[in-house]
Parts: sequence; C-alpha cells; structure tokens
Amino acid sequence: MDHSEIVFGILGNAFHCPVMGEFEYLENALITVDTAGRIQAVLRPEEYQSSGIVQALEGQGRLQRLTASQYLIPGLIDLHNHAPQWPQMGKGLDLPLYDWLSNYTFPLEAKYQDLEFARQVYGDLVQSTLSSGTTSAVYFSSLHLEPSLVLAETCLDKGQRAFVGKVCMDDPDQCPDYYRQSAQQSLYETETFNHAVAGMKGNQGLVSSVVTPRFIPSCTEGLLKELGQFATANDCYVQTHCSESDWARDYSQQKYGETDISVYERTGLLGRKTLLAHSIFLTNQDILIIKDRGAGIAHCPLSNMCFANAAMTTRELLDQGVHCGLGSDVAASVTPSMLRSCFDAVTHSRVREEGTSTHRPAGERGESNTRISLVESFWMATAGGGQSLDQNIGLFKAGFGFDAVVVDAAVPDCDLTIWPGMDSPADILEKIISTTSRHNVTRVWVQGRQVIDKKTAG
Amino acid sequence: MDHSEIVFGILGNAFHCPVMGEFEYLENALITVDTAGRIQAVLRPEEYQSSGIVQALEGQGRLQRLTASQYLIPGLIDLHNHAPQWPQMGKGLDLPLYDWLSNYTFPLEAKYQDLEFARQVYGDLVQSTLSSGTTSAVYFSSLHLEPSLVLAETCLDKGQRAFVGKVCMDDPDQCPDYYRQSAQQSLYETETFNHAVAGMKGNQGLVSSVVTPRFIPSCTEGLLKELGQFATANDCYVQTHCSESDWARDYSQQKYGETDISVYERTGLLGRKTLLAHSIFLTNQDILIIKDRGAGIAHCPLSNMCFANAAMTTRELLDQGVHCGLGSDVAASVTPSMLRSCFDAVTHSRVREEGTSTHRPAGERGESNTRISLVESFWMATAGGGQSLDQNIGLFKAGFGFDAVVVDAAVPDCDLTIWPGMDSPADILEKIISTTSRHNVTRVWVQGRQVIDKKTAG
Ligand SMILES: [Zn+2]
Ligand SMILES: [Zn+2]
Repeated sequence: MDHSEIVFGILGNAFHCPVMGEFEYLENALITVDTAGRIQAVLRPEEYQSSGIVQALEGQGRLQRLTASQYLIPGLIDLHNHAPQWPQMGKGLDLPLYDWLSNYTFPLEAKYQDLEFARQVYGDLVQSTLSSGTTSAVYFSSLHLEPSLVLAETCLDKGQRAFVGKVCMDDPDQCPDYYRQSAQQSLYETETFNHAVAGMKGNQGLVSSVVTPRFIPSCTEGLLKELGQFATANDCYVQTHCSESDWARDYSQQKYGETDISVYERTGLLGRKTLLAHSIFLTNQDILIIKDRGAGIAHCPLSNMCFANAAMTTRELLDQGVHCGLGSDVAASVTPSMLRSCFDAVTHSRVREEGTSTHRPAGERGESNTRISLVESFWMATAGGGQSLDQNIGLFKAGFGFDAVVVDAAVPDCDLTIWPGMDSPADILEKIISTTSRHNVTRVWVQGRQVIDKKTAG
Repeated sequence: MDHSEIVFGILGNAFHCPVMGEFEYLENALITVDTAGRIQAVLRPEEYQSSGIVQALEGQGRLQRLTASQYLIPGLIDLHNHAPQWPQMGKGLDLPLYDWLSNYTFPLEAKYQDLEFARQVYGDLVQSTLSSGTTSAVYFSSLHLEPSLVLAETCLDKGQRAFVGKVCMDDPDQCPDYYRQSAQQSLYETETFNHAVAGMKGNQGLVSSVVTPRFIPSCTEGLLKELGQFATANDCYVQTHCSESDWARDYSQQKYGETDISVYERTGLLGRKTLLAHSIFLTNQDILIIKDRGAGIAHCPLSNMCFANAAMTTRELLDQGVHCGLGSDVAASVTPSMLRSCFDAVTHSRVREEGTSTHRPAGERGESNTRISLVESFWMATAGGGQSLDQNIGLFKAGFGFDAVVVDAAVPDCDLTIWPGMDSPADILEKIISTTSRHNVTRVWVQGRQVIDKKTAG
C-alpha cells in the first residue's frame, strides 16, 4: 500500500450512519486522511493489522490514537442558523414569534453595520459552533453586505465549512423601515457578495455564498424572480424559510393563491441546492415537488416547538426519502449544539405521536406511528445534512471530506457517563446524542484541518 | 447591629422569585448567614452601606464577594428523581414507557443489592446533582433497605438536602418476580428505613425518609393502607406517581372504579407532605382535593414529553394555586439540571398551547392561553419546590435555609453569554435559565454549608 498520499491517520472507536435509521460502530478503526483533507480509507482491524500502516504512521508522528473514553463522530451539520441573532440566544423563548422578532431580532440584526460589533459577535459564534462540533453551518447573515462578508471571512479564517447568505428583504408591508433594502439594492448586494465570497483569499470551496430571500412575506415578487434568475444562472445555493407557521402559510395563499413551495418553484428558487427551513405546513403536492427538485429541508425542532404552531411531519418526510437535515435556528435555540437538536427532534416527534390535550380521548389526541428514533435524528445531523447540501460530508467514507469530532466521556464534571460493562455500542451512541455537552467535544476537524484542540487550548 | 450570629456574608447580584410569575433582582445585595445555616438578613445597598457591616465581615475574612459575571440564585429543588436509574440516563428515550421500564429500568434497579455498586452510583449521582445546582432532591431509591440507606448516607455525607424513599412494590400482577417484596416486608423495611434515617449520625433534619409506594398498579390495596397508616401516624413525607398516563389512569378506574387521587386519599397517603409525580390526567375533583390537602405536584416536563401521553395542565394548576414544583425524573431525563427542566416546562407548555397536528385547523389544534413563562418555571424550581415540600427554602429571605448557587457566565467554553450593554436583568435571568450548563455552576451551599467549590476543586 502506498502511504504517500496520507497526511495523518486516526485510530479509535467511531460511530456513523451510512444508512438512514441505522448506525455503524467502527471499533478500533483506522481512518486515513489525504492531502486534500479527504478520507483516504476507513479500515477495520482485520484490514490494517497485517499491513504495517499503523506502525508506519506512528513512526512518522502522523497517527492520533483515541483513548477508550473517546469516540469519533462525523462533524455535525447545522442547516439553519441566524448568525446575527447570536447575542439574543436564550432570551424570550417564551414569547410569541411576532413579539420575539419585533422586540429582539430586527433591532439586533440592524446593528451589524457596526463592523467591529460584527467581528466580535461572529468570532464568538463561529468559535462556539465549532467548539460544539458543528463543522458545517448554513448561515443567514443580516441585510447588509459588509457584515455578511465579515461572517464569511470569519468562517474561512477559523476553518468552518460554511454557507453564508446576505438576507434579502424589500417589501415595505412586512419589513420595518429601518431594516429593509430596495429590490435593486438587494440584488446588487447579493451579486457582489457572491462574487466576493468566491474570491476570498484561500477559499478553496470551504465557504459558499447563498442566495437568501428571508421568506415570502419579506420580499416582493419582483425580487424573488430576480434572485431566482441569479441563483439559476450561477448555480448558487439558495436558502429561505418555508411554510413555518399558520400565518406564513396563509400569507402566501392570500397574496398569491399558492403555497410557499409553488411560489419558490415558479420564481426559480427551488433546486438541488435549495435549503428550506422548517417546512411545517406542506401539502402532498409540495412534498412531491421538493423531492423531485432534490431540495433539502432544515428541520429545526426546538424552534418549531416554540414558534411553528404545529409539529413537523418528520416521520413522513424521512419515509418518503425527502432530503432532510437539522438546523439549530439560532437564536430560536438555547445552544448551538446539533446533538441537542437531535434530541429535541426525537422529543418533538414523541409529543406529536402522543398529542397534548388531556381533554381528548387517547385515540384522538396524537398521530400514531410518527415518532423518530435517536439514530434517525443523528443521521439527519450528519449524513442527512450532507445529502441536503449535496456535499460529500457526514460519513466516514473514502472520498468524503474528513469532518470529524472527538466526544470524550472522561471530561470531568459532565453528564455523559459510560458505565463499564453496562452500555452497549447502541447505548453509548444514544448517550452521546442525549447527554454530550460542549465540554465533551475536545477535538474537531474540518476537511482534514484540526480547528479545535481543547487539550492544547486549555 | 449585632453581627455575632453571622457566620459569613455574600455580596453580589442575585435573582429569586418571591411571587409566582415575578422575579426580583437583588443588585449588589448582602446576604448574611447565621450559625444554623439560615439566612439572617438580605440587605440592599441602602440598607447596609452606612452600617459598616461589609467592612466588618471583610476584615474578619467572612465576606465572599461575587464578580460582575457571577449571579446568585436559590438552590434548585428536584422533586422527583429515581436514584438507581442514574446509569441509564440518556438511554432509550425514544422507546415507549413499557419497553423502557422492562428493558432498562427494572433489571437495573434490582442490581443495587450489591452495596458497592450502590455506593459508586449514588456517590456519582449526588455529586452530579449538587454540581448542577440541585440543593434539595426527592429520591425514589430501589426496593431494598440497605441500598436505600446507602443513598441517604451519601446525601448526608455530601451535604445535600434530601428526601429519600425505599420503593414499595408488592403486587405480583404488575411487578416482575425478581423485583418485588411482600406487603409485610415492604412495610417492615419502610419502618426500619424511617427509623434509621432519623437516627443517622449528624442528621439534623437534612435528610428525611419518604414513604414510597411506587404507583397504584405496583401495590396491593392492603399495602397502600398500611403505608398510609404509617405515614399518618409518623407525620412522614409520602411520594408516589399519580395519573401519569392513560394506562395508569385506566388501571385505577378498572381496579378500584376511582381516580388515583381518590385511592391515595382513601388510603391515608394524601397530605401536606405528599409529593405526586406527574399528575397529568387529573379530574377537577382531583385538583380540588389536592389543593385542599396541600399536597405538592412534581411536574417532570421532559419525562412527560416522552412518556405521559399528553401534556401537563401546568397553567391551570399554577393559576389555581396548587403547590407545584419541578422534577427531573432521572433517568427519564438527559441531565440532572433543574434549569433544563425549567426550560423544558416552558417548551412543553408552548407545544400544548399550539398543538401538534398540521391536519387540524389552527383553532382546533392546541389549547389557547396555556403557556407558562420562564420566570414561572424558575419559580417552580425554587420557591414552588420549597412550598411543595413545606420547607423554608427556595427564596433569599430571612429565616430561610441558605441554599444557593453561583452561576458564572465567565466560565470558558460555555453557552451562557451576557453581552455588555445588551442584556437587562430580565434578559440575564432568562439566559441563566435557558443556557446555563453544569460548568457555569461554580459554588453551591446547602443550609449554609458550602458543598461545591469548583475553583478549589479545579
Ligand atoms: Zn430561521
Ligand atoms: Zn418517576
């Protein structure tokens, strides 16, 4: 075997989900990483033991051995995160959406024209998401060009795989005066941003720009069409909110007599590289169209529990093979951790299955057989996110980007505890999903580059 | 002013909830603690500035000053925690209750007759709950006397205010053969346990025993009556599960033609010192009886989301003034943190308010005006828990036990971030409730004794 292409190898226990709903435990596996930051090979003990590769890499100081308390998982993928709302996290999540947006969100997002403020907040955000194991993040920035560039540069600088969108809002009916641009300015800044991100020094595809109409009520039809044309012509990522609430769904019906999906499709905004946040109130026809176009859904469970008026039909979407990952929806969230989102997705599906009202008989309360498993939610936060992004990430597989996280159960003063002889690999994975805190995330790599090392940073 | 009774004072910013639904911010307050571990006084700057007390205490090395990033909150109160399930935390919370109990819980609980195992697990549990800010915990132990005593001794040793019950299960119809005692043995061990806990060396009321019939299906009527008589005669605490699920509710109706509350009342188990876990499916008559007897409800939001079949009617119970606090229901939980329970209680109430089914029209989906606020849930985890226990704890008030927690926002690598000039006291309290992790809890006192000090333990 030729090892010249290998930059380093990692030897230890790993979990991932090559098939939706199933996990694979790679015990004492060797994962090698090539010069492009891709996984060169994933080898089980019987595949590497006689080759001498472990000894060779170790002799050259290019082997990292995990301890028995450390587990490697694929880098976590956050499909929906509002970067400028970061300082707001943990505030007002007991309020209705309208109050929350008016009292906290819009005034805060407008502050980012102060670029020093943008640098400070985005530095902390990207450090925090990486430190929580998020190797890929899809960000809504704010309305303005320059702070959006600060966010893109911060991601590139810190080594996070990122998809960043300058937010477009031009409809005076629904956007506050102090936080709105003309359609012309929105399009111009979107084009400029797209060009600038592609041209950032050292950006070899780690950071992409995303065409970002906030949602249907915030944009005129003219702007949606312009953005759709631009995205189609330039093969851009697109992100937006889709049918998040009764109000949003009804708004499109009243304005256009159509569903959100129908509007996005007609305006050229729905394709393989489109990410639809929420997507709660979908018609069967909507689902067929999303599946046909290959767009991805960003399910944001905690945000849904707070703001969406109803539960996501996650079970049905997964069963139909619609591309579906998870989003934190920071700051409709209390942590950037995508493992928390995994757990919340399960909880939300269980509440949906059981229903809520004690005044209804058991059979008329919930929607039976709609829960999802912890392993299914973990698939969404890893492989499912990669599929939604049309990127080779989220799995330990040759050719995929080496985006990985070490979760260490031996960190002091943490909830994640593996009891000797009492926990099977399935149990350990469930505990990792359910109880990992930011402190258990001790090392993180993105495309082969180590971006978090708490041992040395400590 | 005579300072001779003061053992020490704490000077800094504090939050608490003297009135349900409201919070009080004690800015730069001085809290003094007497020789019995009680709060001697809570003084605002205008009340202590001219007295010289700060200088006097500081000169004697008896003043602790909090920094600007540190906030004092009342010790958190966990009204429902299954101690032997601790190693199971984070496993199988995507399963239905029956599978979860049969596959994980009962086999695990049966292991505690190995007292070395009991010592190891309970040592870790009590350390973890204290380290998460839980100063008072109400525990279900397991079926057997000796491991229950190990738990009580561990709490006393580590200084946690604890209410510990040896679990009673005698009905062969509903309890596995390997995990059941006769009614006679259950009563005998309950009496013995009660006597032993009261007589533990150094136990000045910090640890109490609790008469603990697991729930109605696990106990014969004869045992319930015997336990009720014993509890009444000895003014004991009582804890049990109440109307947790459709199945539990229906079981009592089929066996007795009564509600759980009616059975507990008739058997002498319902009084001022009774704690009822869950209490999801209550009739109006049940609520009147609970209120009349002054019993307390332990609302366990995450457990309810997973296992209860419907949402707790928390809003109505709080509005009617029923005693109500929060429980982690470890291991139907993913953390011992009662702040997480606060947040989950809010989320659960929001899902209840909105409903879940996208197939129903908005007006027929949820139950309007039933959400609770973050401050209400924080009241439940502090003052409401104290009220439920009929103990003077959960507030910073003269005469109350000094049970307190320092939450430090300056701990590195944590989600709790206060942004200069952007967060009001109300915002800060909401962030503390929503985003505090175990690492932010740096100091903890119970009845004036400091039981956690992460600076020196570090
Ligand atoms: Zn969003
Ligand atoms: Zn319980």
